[in-house]
Amino acid sequence: MARQHKKTDFPVHQVRRYLEPGPIVLVSSRRRDKTNIMTLGWHTMLEFSPSLVGCMISGGNHSHRMIHDSGECVINLPTTALTDTVVGIGNTSGAEVDKFREFGLTAEPAQEVQAPLIRECHASFECRLHDDALVDRYNFFIFEVVKAHVASVPKHPKTLHYTGDGVFITAGGVVDRKSLFRPGML
Amino acid sequence: MARQHKKTDFPVHQVRRYLEPGPIVLVSSRRRDKTNIMTLGWHTMLEFSPSLVGCMISGGNHSHRMIHDSGECVINLPTTALTDTVVGIGNTSGAEVDKFREFGLTAEPAQEVQAPLIRECHASFECRLHDDALVDRYNFFIFEVVKAHVASVPKHPKTLHYTGDGVFITAGGVVDRKSLFRPGML
Repeated sequence: MARQHKKTDFPVHQVRRYLEPGPIVLVSSRRRDKTNIMTLGWHTMLEFSPSLVGCMISGGNHSHRMIHDSGECVINLPTTALTDTVVGIGNTSGAEVDKFREFGLTAEPAQEVQAPLIRECHASFECRLHDDALVDRYNFFIFEVVKAHVASVPKHPKTLHYTGDGVFITAGGVVDRKSLFRPGML
Repeated sequence: MARQHKKTDFPVHQVRRYLEPGPIVLVSSRRRDKTNIMTLGWHTMLEFSPSLVGCMISGGNHSHRMIHDSGECVINLPTTALTDTVVGIGNTSGAEVDKFREFGLTAEPAQEVQAPLIRECHASFECRLHDDALVDRYNFFIFEVVKAHVASVPKHPKTLHYTGDGVFITAGGVVDRKSLFRPGML
């Protein structure tokens, strides 16, 4: 059973701290009385403030329409403790399975959106759809992170990074080069 | 001195193998007789075939205009052997510095584009600008990878993943869960 992290508020303009390294994330959504979760690796930071994140959510995913219709989702950050859950969620469809129940995850109410947070994740970022200009052409959603919740420990969560073919790499060591940065670049 | 990796052709529709985990990359460009290199962490895979990658290249970067005007670049994959080079490149401007010379890197001719490959990197992906629809609004370039060069060893290069504030995490262990995937999901 994964630990249920105690989370505190985190500045939305600093979510790059967790998303830029490219972790697999779990995207939770709600439309009317149905929730769903999908596994996603194709995302990028786009802007600090407003805090914008772009996500490629394939049209084949049950979550695609739920997120497009509701205009909301939560991007949750799992760690290696949830490896098999991440794989299980990525290999089942919300059209057939209630993923919170199937994978023993806890849906918590968000503050700014209807989509639920996943309590067992290290961080949860509440998102509103900001721009759907590229959804039809590339399934590319641009979200604004409107509220962020992050566990204070561990400082460097052991995230999962997908490489395809069923193989992940995990977050390894920490390399601090702050002393080599120009102040304006930090 | 970083090793100069011997690279071989790699299928462009599989570049997610290297880009999806979210590594810092070095983007090289050429416009007329000038080359440049920038450090980039805000990118995502968008499609397998054509092989599309989206990159947020801020307008403040000297490379922004070079890449927009030339419609080309090369996305190079550095490893921890190049940590200080990655930081140095990210903290200098191509308007003032010849980065290949300043950082002792070797420009190699690409096959499909005019922008140079960086020999000291583990992999190099030759890119053509595929769609600039979001460049004005978000500095978001959609590139097609038209040719890929990858070193065969090590199989899992020790990539750098930026978290902001001068701190990187490095690629750690490898977790294989292929046996848990449905065949169509691999």
